[in-house]
Amino acid sequence: MDITVLIGVVLGFGMMVYGIMSGSGDFATFIDIPSLVITVGGAISSAITANKKNVVFGIVKVIMGAIKEPKIDYVGTLRTLVSFSEKARREGLLSLEANIEEIQDPYFKKAIQLVVDGTEPEVLRNMMEIEIDMATAEMMDQKAFFDSLGTFGPAFGMIGTLVGLIQMLKSLNNPEALGPSMAVALITTLYGSILANIVGIPVAEKIAKRAADLEVFKRMILEGIISIQAGENPRVLEEKLKSYLPSQERTKYEAQVQGAGA
Amino acid sequence: MDITVLIGVVLGFGMMVYGIMSGSGDFATFIDIPSLVITVGGAISSAITANKKNVVFGIVKVIMGAIKEPKIDYVGTLRTLVSFSEKARREGLLSLEANIEEIQDPYFKKAIQLVVDGTEPEVLRNMMEIEIDMATAEMMDQKAFFDSLGTFGPAFGMIGTLVGLIQMLKSLNNPEALGPSMAVALITTLYGSILANIVGIPVAEKIAKRAADLEVFKRMILEGIISIQAGENPRVLEEKLKSYLPSQERTKYEAQVQGAGA
Amino acid sequence: MDITVLIGVVLGFGMMVYGIMSGSGDFATFIDIPSLVITVGGAISSAITANKKNVVFGIVKVIMGAIKEPKIDYVGTLRTLVSFSEKARREGLLSLEANIEEIQDPYFKKAIQLVVDGTEPEVLRNMMEIEIDMATAEMMDQKAFFDSLGTFGPAFGMIGTLVGLIQMLKSLNNPEALGPSMAVALITTLYGSILANIVGIPVAEKIAKRAADLEVFKRMILEGIISIQAGENPRVLEEKLKSYLPSQERTKYEAQVQGAGA
Amino acid sequence: MDITVLIGVVLGFGMMVYGIMSGSGDFATFIDIPSLVITVGGAISSAITANKKNVVFGIVKVIMGAIKEPKIDYVGTLRTLVSFSEKARREGLLSLEANIEEIQDPYFKKAIQLVVDGTEPEVLRNMMEIEIDMATAEMMDQKAFFDSLGTFGPAFGMIGTLVGLIQMLKSLNNPEALGPSMAVALITTLYGSILANIVGIPVAEKIAKRAADLEVFKRMILEGIISIQAGENPRVLEEKLKSYLPSQERTKYEAQVQGAGA
Amino acid sequence: MDITVLIGVVLGFGMMVYGIMSGSGDFATFIDIPSLVITVGGAISSAITANKKNVVFGIVKVIMGAIKEPKIDYVGTLRTLVSFSEKARREGLLSLEANIEEIQDPYFKKAIQLVVDGTEPEVLRNMMEIEIDMATAEMMDQKAFFDSLGTFGPAFGMIGTLVGLIQMLKSLNNPEALGPSMAVALITTLYGSILANIVGIPVAEKIAKRAADLEVFKRMILEGIISIQAGENPRVLEEKLKSYLPSQERTKYEAQVQGAGA
Repeated sequence: MDITVLIGVVLGFGMMVYGIMSGSGDFATFIDIPSLVITVGGAISSAITANKKNVVFGIVKVIMGAIKEPKIDYVGTLRTLVSFSEKARREGLLSLEANIEEIQDPYFKKAIQLVVDGTEPEVLRNMMEIEIDMATAEMMDQKAFFDSLGTFGPAFGMIGTLVGLIQMLKSLNNPEALGPSMAVALITTLYGSILANIVGIPVAEKIAKRAADLEVFKRMILEGIISIQAGENPRVLEEKLKSYLPSQERTKYEAQVQGAGA
Repeated sequence: MDITVLIGVVLGFGMMVYGIMSGSGDFATFIDIPSLVITVGGAISSAITANKKNVVFGIVKVIMGAIKEPKIDYVGTLRTLVSFSEKARREGLLSLEANIEEIQDPYFKKAIQLVVDGTEPEVLRNMMEIEIDMATAEMMDQKAFFDSLGTFGPAFGMIGTLVGLIQMLKSLNNPEALGPSMAVALITTLYGSILANIVGIPVAEKIAKRAADLEVFKRMILEGIISIQAGENPRVLEEKLKSYLPSQERTKYEAQVQGAGA
Repeated sequence: MDITVLIGVVLGFGMMVYGIMSGSGDFATFIDIPSLVITVGGAISSAITANKKNVVFGIVKVIMGAIKEPKIDYVGTLRTLVSFSEKARREGLLSLEANIEEIQDPYFKKAIQLVVDGTEPEVLRNMMEIEIDMATAEMMDQKAFFDSLGTFGPAFGMIGTLVGLIQMLKSLNNPEALGPSMAVALITTLYGSILANIVGIPVAEKIAKRAADLEVFKRMILEGIISIQAGENPRVLEEKLKSYLPSQERTKYEAQVQGAGA
Repeated sequence: MDITVLIGVVLGFGMMVYGIMSGSGDFATFIDIPSLVITVGGAISSAITANKKNVVFGIVKVIMGAIKEPKIDYVGTLRTLVSFSEKARREGLLSLEANIEEIQDPYFKKAIQLVVDGTEPEVLRNMMEIEIDMATAEMMDQKAFFDSLGTFGPAFGMIGTLVGLIQMLKSLNNPEALGPSMAVALITTLYGSILANIVGIPVAEKIAKRAADLEVFKRMILEGIISIQAGENPRVLEEKLKSYLPSQERTKYEAQVQGAGA
Repeated sequence: MDITVLIGVVLGFGMMVYGIMSGSGDFATFIDIPSLVITVGGAISSAITANKKNVVFGIVKVIMGAIKEPKIDYVGTLRTLVSFSEKARREGLLSLEANIEEIQDPYFKKAIQLVVDGTEPEVLRNMMEIEIDMATAEMMDQKAFFDSLGTFGPAFGMIGTLVGLIQMLKSLNNPEALGPSMAVALITTLYGSILANIVGIPVAEKIAKRAADLEVFKRMILEGIISIQAGENPRVLEEKLKSYLPSQERTKYEAQVQGAGA
């Protein structure tokens, strides 16, 4: 569960509720099922047209993925890589076979498996880089769905408002009904803005940032694996890989290593 | 037939119908042939100016292409590549000549033909990469037509509304006609938004995503062919190419291979 | 003459005429010389500020260039390259000197001249690539002028409307004049949208697409020339260069070669 | 303290105050706590959804970082590098160990430490380049938070205005209250524009420019260190690194060196 | 003095004057000092926040730079390079020392100085490329200031209009004052549009185009210098560098050389 997505979306809707309550407080005014259907339904329709089949038919997985935080354990992974490096120097690369089962991260696991299988370094790097590119591309496909909500939400909001306005203007015989009709017409624009700005755009950005983080994380693993395969000094490997760590993680890592060494 | 394009566009228009029915239900209000001509005709005019001659004069093919799903058979193609790799190791590269006819994909076919013809690896890679670039560029030219609808649809919608507003304001002697006149003026904006958001933008995005998918697919074929030509181990080839497979396809592939091996 | 630019722009203006006729039909309402001067004049002013001196002072040439279609003869050029390749293999590179005069395309001509002069392959490639980059940059400078019309047309349209609105609102003593005054104020916005969406944006896009086409065409010529210089097999050259051909041109080429061979 | 951020933001708010005073001068009209909560709260909500966890939970540090100017001392650093280069030529690379403590900049310090530790040049370059990339990425994550304020500020401003308008239109029985209600509805749009245009967008741009500056600065240090490690002539190093200096800094450097030499 | 910037900006303001005169002709309506202060002052405030310190404090130099045309003498520089090439072949590289003083362009001068000093080609290329990158970056920093005017001008225009509207709506007791008040409120939007579209955006674009031109010009000089240093044939150098010349300059160059040779 990604706590920031949860907090952000709940807080965003909370602001709406507060906004309504601080005004007339009449919630019923803001609930209009047909408006909801047009705006959300329309946005989803065009999102279906715009996105890949596997995203469309796997939409539940995509949404679940959006609220799940990927596991990125810089400190633990770096420590494991250092220990693997030491072990490989002492007992040979094949000795790592015994450790494959304890690795959680599938990317890490695959890379170690390839090392144990005796894959050539260049082939290993090539394969694992394609893995990174494909994983990033898959996340970008998921991001694209939320981008669609960000684009088509307001678009269908405006379409709904135009439909409402045209109907209202066509039958302008009753000036008294003007205000309320226009209020209803504007609700689709409101829904579209909410869909885009509380869900679509921010979630799409979050996914893009996660993909970037995962790419760095996997690149660190890949450099570590290649270093292990080349039989480099574990201290050099450690120093090299620490460059990939965000500053907070670096402090944490050093504290842990300090603690372990004491 | 690309089912998601069909579903998305039909559902999108369905939302419009529902929106109108949930309001006054008067469809006649929303049908105005001159408005349709101005908006769609105008958008197409500027799309003609903006796009390449072969796209403009081959527009039927472009539209047909937009609702047709390209054939991307990752699993089957990978299995074929592995079997070709095994055969080439057993019986030599020339033995693949017998298999050329059974290949459907023209890109794959051309690559195998070049291998059988004894083309040098570097020349082959260079040629097949240009093929990829040119195919992607051609799809981007098709995408550009739908991008034009996405840009010029709303633009001519606004132009139509401005024309209507100016005519209305010029003859403001009859305040009773104000509402209905404005309703008519707004219809072009509605049409422009629909053209852009149900057709233009989402179809353009779909084409871009297809082009990206095709590029990965062809790149997988190319790597496979080069690996076959170099006489690499079929297991290494299989392992390498599996990196290109989207996660769903990978599971499918492994299930099939498992099944075949059992 | 680029027929698609002609059709697109004429059709676009035709839509405007139809839109006016299908309404009040009063053309006089839509013609306002001061509005035209402000919008078009303003857009041109800022285009002068934004663009390069040689584009500004060579504007007639730029506009002429925009409605002229560049000559790209894939089929003929490829056939010439193949025949040059055959001749060079038979009679030596210097024998091509006799053919320089028959070449129309200045890029092609320069490249052949360099080959005949005995320029080193690396120098030749470097020079001809700079030629491509410079030609593309020059077209982009021309595109930038139309981009400016696309940006500053609507901007000055809005500025004109604001000026009109402010004047109107300041002297709001006569409510009867409100409508017509506002109609006049809106005309600049209309003009700005027309300038941008019938001329500026679509022509800019067309120029960008032409530049991309020319780049591919010249790159094909360059690869051919280098292949000739290296004395490569004419069949390999033909096969390599066919990769650059758009699918339609490829069919045409094969039909012609078939016809010639028969 | 970054004086330009301080001046810019204070001056920006000053303009608002002046604008209000030059009008009615009634400040109370422009202060509406619920509007503030919706706009700022909403923008922060979606910023929480969109941004990385370490940015969200370290927001105080992010904001502090935004008003702090990074230390970039081109002249002093270049002089230090030149003096290190001279010392290393005279007394060997290890002699630099004595100088590590006097270096303030952590990037510079780490690089010198690596040199003293005898790290191979290629490894050193690789590590320090990853350091640069990671530091830039971290600053871009901070920038993204202010980008979010720039995007979601106006978005929630519009959402707040729509909520206000809908409430107002729904109860249009009292035409006298129309104006003041609409005034209140518009306040969220005003707040959103202020949040975006005085804080969000300009601060985000500043951070991006700082990141670019820091990158050049670190790249200069890296080139210097590698040059020192390679034992290059201090004059060549000086000449090379002066290319990185902005023109003002170059003049300053030359003046100082001139002064020191006299 | 860049004549196109002068013409463009003066003509742009001229269009405004003409627009006002062709309407009511009442200039006083369009002059409102507080509106000017809010819009221009606000835009400058946020430009201060967004831009680099040396741009902010060197703003006079930045503005002067914007209306000054950089000296790019393709023809003269190419002729000088050819004559230097000939001289260096005859009398050696050191003989160029006598010519350093006659060179105006500081980039050219520095490069020749480095050649005379015996700098290694690779170091020279590296240094001079960093010079190009830094000079381009400095121009982009200057461009960014005008970009800020283009962004924040309309933003503060809208903020000013919102402030005006809110004040007006709050005290809606006098319907007669409605029009004039709204006219005043709209003036900031007008000012913001003018600031952005006559000054900010077009000047920013001009600077970007100049930077691109200067980069090509310097790259031509660099290639020439490296060619001289390598002792290449002056005819090859001339042919190579002519590729960098824009088509107009090429014609001019050939005419001059023709004239000189006759």
